[in-house]
Amino acid sequence: MELLELAELTRQSKFALGKMTTDEKNKVINAVADALEKNSADIIKANEIDMAAGANKLMSAGLLDRLKLTEDRIKGIADGLRQVALLDDPIGKVSDEFIRPNGLKIQKRIVPIGVVGVIYEARPNVTADVFSLCYKTGNAVLLKGGSDAIESNKAIVKVIRETIKALGYNENACTLIEDTSRQSTKEMMRLNGYIDVLIPRGGAGLIKSVVENASVPVIETGSGNCHIYVDKDADLDMAVEVIDNAKTQRIGVCNACESLVVHEDIIAQFLPKLNDRLMERGVRVKADDRSRVFMKDSEEAFDSDFAMEYLDLIISVKTVNDIDEAISHINKNNTGHSESIITNDTEAAEKFLNEIDAACVYVNASTRFTDGFEFGFGAEIGISTQKLHARGPMGLMALTSYKYTIYGNGQIRK
Amino acid sequence: MELLELAELTRQSKFALGKMTTDEKNKVINAVADALEKNSADIIKANEIDMAAGANKLMSAGLLDRLKLTEDRIKGIADGLRQVALLDDPIGKVSDEFIRPNGLKIQKRIVPIGVVGVIYEARPNVTADVFSLCYKTGNAVLLKGGSDAIESNKAIVKVIRETIKALGYNENACTLIEDTSRQSTKEMMRLNGYIDVLIPRGGAGLIKSVVENASVPVIETGSGNCHIYVDKDADLDMAVEVIDNAKTQRIGVCNACESLVVHEDIIAQFLPKLNDRLMERGVRVKADDRSRVFMKDSEEAFDSDFAMEYLDLIISVKTVNDIDEAISHINKNNTGHSESIITNDTEAAEKFLNEIDAACVYVNASTRFTDGFEFGFGAEIGISTQKLHARGPMGLMALTSYKYTIYGNGQIRK
Repeated sequence: MELLELAELTRQSKFALGKMTTDEKNKVINAVADALEKNSADIIKANEIDMAAGANKLMSAGLLDRLKLTEDRIKGIADGLRQVALLDDPIGKVSDEFIRPNGLKIQKRIVPIGVVGVIYEARPNVTADVFSLCYKTGNAVLLKGGSDAIESNKAIVKVIRETIKALGYNENACTLIEDTSRQSTKEMMRLNGYIDVLIPRGGAGLIKSVVENASVPVIETGSGNCHIYVDKDADLDMAVEVIDNAKTQRIGVCNACESLVVHEDIIAQFLPKLNDRLMERGVRVKADDRSRVFMKDSEEAFDSDFAMEYLDLIISVKTVNDIDEAISHINKNNTGHSESIITNDTEAAEKFLNEIDAACVYVNASTRFTDGFEFGFGAEIGISTQKLHARGPMGLMALTSYKYTIYGNGQIRK
Repeated sequence: MELLELAELTRQSKFALGKMTTDEKNKVINAVADALEKNSADIIKANEIDMAAGANKLMSAGLLDRLKLTEDRIKGIADGLRQVALLDDPIGKVSDEFIRPNGLKIQKRIVPIGVVGVIYEARPNVTADVFSLCYKTGNAVLLKGGSDAIESNKAIVKVIRETIKALGYNENACTLIEDTSRQSTKEMMRLNGYIDVLIPRGGAGLIKSVVENASVPVIETGSGNCHIYVDKDADLDMAVEVIDNAKTQRIGVCNACESLVVHEDIIAQFLPKLNDRLMERGVRVKADDRSRVFMKDSEEAFDSDFAMEYLDLIISVKTVNDIDEAISHINKNNTGHSESIITNDTEAAEKFLNEIDAACVYVNASTRFTDGFEFGFGAEIGISTQKLHARGPMGLMALTSYKYTIYGNGQIRK
């Protein structure tokens, strides 16, 4: 089917979907969870085609691992859907209400966005994930997955659509664009009037391409050059633990620490201790001249290193003269994701919290907590690094809009 | 100066601006109001150059009127600024706070967006208006006004910048792009990393061009094909008054009514009465076949009429068999702005409020109330017709974002 036809069918489905009760939506989501488990053999068979094609193409072990579906992983996906069914449904709630002097009663009601477009790479778990979050919030979803996962995505979406249809609802609420060409991605990004928001999920290249080419509103997610600043007045043992955790607990994620900033007063005392721990963990250190003196085997850091999101066992180190220099260094190089200060000085902490320009700013904690589940949202559609609509971890509320409903008795404007 | 240099200076100014107290910001805004009045002779002199150029170009009387500045109008602008100074400052407020099981205390704090880019046409009052709303919310503003108002804008921005500077603050918080070429507008729309949000203010053509060409996030404003639906169970006298008001009280505005939808059960009784009023007001009626029978001197409506934002003394009329047809007709043709139902049936009213997809949905009231001042927001930066970030009339809160500030005592992620 042509892209425009698919988009129009998806758009049409949003009206009935927006009217469904919470119970009806949960029934569908739970039924899809059951159906995914029941049909896991078919899904795995489709996934094997993708896996074989990936191996043929010499895809990396890491990418193949992300692509692979097993009985266990499908059970994990299904359990994720059941969790979403348990979450509170924000749709229909009145978040504000006021009466104007002329008697007009104005309510602000939480409503679905409408049609959410999601462009993602070869991670078939995203397909079911995104469907459940959108469906729960009454949004239709138009999915564009990577070509490397196309057979897996088709199998998963087939199960989702058949389940929706069997329960008597409109299956176009979950539509997959099977044409995986770049051309169709470009066309999708310009479907104003059909798609209300585009969420790219994937690497920096994908996100950059969507931001540059989309005319549909975009929520930019993902890239994180996260800093930890160790102030002169810090608990240095705590600093070692937090940096170790933020750098090494999981390296390929956007909330991992990539850049260290250290007050010059403590470099002689702190850096050798930190260096031992980082070497133990196999972390490569790229440091500026002042800090290299205290970090055995470190390499020279170039300006470009301070702007890098390594997503690897590498960290940059920068020495600063004071907290102002730390803040301006971070505000210059960060991606607006997550930054942390280690300090016992509450004044320095408040200054850092106020002046750092990022979605999440921490005092004495690991940047790894920037996550919808860790924040207690019960779900995550991504982590926004832009300032419009949603910032930081996005739970169900990020998939909602609002409308004003106004009750009058004949009011006219003078 | 090159555009990129201007943008970088504007961007740099946002850091100090974001730290200013409410009192400091209000002091600047009030001082600018005084200075505009004090320098009104210079501003009017500059405006006369624009007016002469406009007359030379045979600009329409309506456009010339919008361009013109007088002593009185400058006083009106200054009073508007003083009103903004009186408004509550949302910046720095904690809108949510919660503690996680691991002890992390998470606060959601209201913060400025950063740099707001505004692209607008030949209305020099917008210059001071937008400055005051942005400054109040701690946002720097990069202004791109139409070439027809360039001398007026330069004079106004000169006063604003001199006032800011004289009080010891960074004048780059209000920067005008003096290069009025299309090329510089295109470049401005792609200044990701410098501008955090673009707000186009002007006609449909300008807004469409910004939506299509910008890579910076946009808040789409303005266009309104607003409907009034007269249900079978309506107070017909009220319907006449509301339609008259929504169509004729002011015709060139986005919240004016452009399209009428009428239940077939009442057309014989209602339309002749309405027609008399519309003819009295000089409104041209473009009606479908069923309604034309009851509307003397009406013209034939084509499908394209139902999608038109006339901004003129013209209205389209469509007959429907029931409320479902009314809702689907409106959802197909509207621009997501404002729609109203006239009915005494509360069930029909709730159905309409729930199912119409628009920023503002009314029962028994004129669509002309969609306005930041009428809603009690005390200000208006525009009316959003998109669903992301802000919808409907946008007050100061639409110019804010938030960040999470998180207090820990050494928490690491397991």
